[in-house]
Amino acid sequence: MTHAALTAPDSAADFEARLRQIGAERYHDKHPFHQLLHSGGCSIDQVRAWVINRYYYQTRIPMKDAAFMSRVSDPDLRRVWRSRIEDHDGGVNEGGGIRRWLKLAEGVGLDPDYVASEVGILPATRFAVDAYVRFVRDAPLLPAMASSLTELFAPTIHKTRIAGLLAHYDFANPNTISYFQHRLTEAPKDVAFGLKWVMDRAISRADQDAAAAALIFKTEVLWAQLDALHSAYVAPARIPPGGWQPHEGLL
Amino acid sequence: MTHAALTAPDSAADFEARLRQIGAERYHDKHPFHQLLHSGGCSIDQVRAWVINRYYYQTRIPMKDAAFMSRVSDPDLRRVWRSRIEDHDGGVNEGGGIRRWLKLAEGVGLDPDYVASEVGILPATRFAVDAYVRFVRDAPLLPAMASSLTELFAPTIHKTRIAGLLAHYDFANPNTISYFQHRLTEAPKDVAFGLKWVMDRAISRADQDAAAAALIFKTEVLWAQLDALHSAYVAPARIPPGGWQPHEGLL
Repeated sequence: MTHAALTAPDSAADFEARLRQIGAERYHDKHPFHQLLHSGGCSIDQVRAWVINRYYYQTRIPMKDAAFMSRVSDPDLRRVWRSRIEDHDGGVNEGGGIRRWLKLAEGVGLDPDYVASEVGILPATRFAVDAYVRFVRDAPLLPAMASSLTELFAPTIHKTRIAGLLAHYDFANPNTISYFQHRLTEAPKDVAFGLKWVMDRAISRADQDAAAAALIFKTEVLWAQLDALHSAYVAPARIPPGGWQPHEGLL
Repeated sequence: MTHAALTAPDSAADFEARLRQIGAERYHDKHPFHQLLHSGGCSIDQVRAWVINRYYYQTRIPMKDAAFMSRVSDPDLRRVWRSRIEDHDGGVNEGGGIRRWLKLAEGVGLDPDYVASEVGILPATRFAVDAYVRFVRDAPLLPAMASSLTELFAPTIHKTRIAGLLAHYDFANPNTISYFQHRLTEAPKDVAFGLKWVMDRAISRADQDAAAAALIFKTEVLWAQLDALHSAYVAPARIPPGGWQPHEGLL
């Protein structure tokens, strides 16, 4: 290929297709742990381990979004972005994805205070999630925004999950799975904005590459969390020191 | 003094008095530029220069608060803190201190789009304000919180300013000065929370010293902005390269 061909940017359509292909190849809906979870193959303790570890990711999302906002000098962009924090944190007294996640925790028999204490979270979960927060704090704004585009792929997994949990697990009901139900409307609203923002700005090959790399990085952050979970809690289970031990933190 | 006396913490009452004394000695209500402004001694161009430069501070406050939130793992604290961003940024379509500041800009004859473009802001203003955002992003949480406690001293200056502007300047009316009117209720609510948070946690001498140093730092950030303004726009005025030139950006 000539130098020009290597450095020419993709058309908007090709660039969007490139981003979507990353999801097709790397999004964590393909991870064996999710396939186990959604098909009813998880024991209640494996579900609990997932709920405990994923809680850490849930609580860091608003920190990630605040880190993003801390770098945005355009008040209009901040005003739009703030709803992400509101969706997850909720109000002072009620609402929000974090509280809905703790309903799920309760539904699977975990003490929500134990889950909220962040005790028992796998070190590898922390490392992956913290890497995401740091990335959004430190990377240029375009890749920082692009890393949120895994939401392009989220509605499909949420629909699969809602159906799978309801079909296979006694704990699943509209109250315990309300987190996922809310995400079905929240994520598409956010990602429509984010995708347009990225597409409008990633018009050089270098910026398109940076955006694609950021999205790949984010799929790695998600995948690594499930690898850690699988390694710790699926036979042959090897729970690392510090990881949640089944029967801890139960209601 | 013995080592023990040097390292023993102040009582809560003494520590609070120490913080308040910092305001008494160093808050920017004592700066000659503010005394000029509040007594009607500023020319309209000097008011405009103040409005343009202070706009930069206004827009960075929500970034500073987002930087703080990006480090807060306690959802309850984030939920309380978020109202600061809401107060300044307002909603997607209306409200907020930044828009109210642009009303003031319009009232003094400046094109609000020019002011919002951040052209003409003194480099020293940027340096001081950016130092504040970085401090809150990087310092431990206790001094980061303590740096917000200049709000302890803000209601007095806002009352003086409202009265002074209304008494001395034709542009002053409830619409143009609504920013300050809102701060009269917003700042006390915020600082009551912040002061209690700091007092509850700064129970060692080292933490009390760090909190006091952070508050001093913040008074320096505010004072340096007025020094830059005074140097550039009060006779003998020396506007640095890049600084707003009177007659630029007018309506």
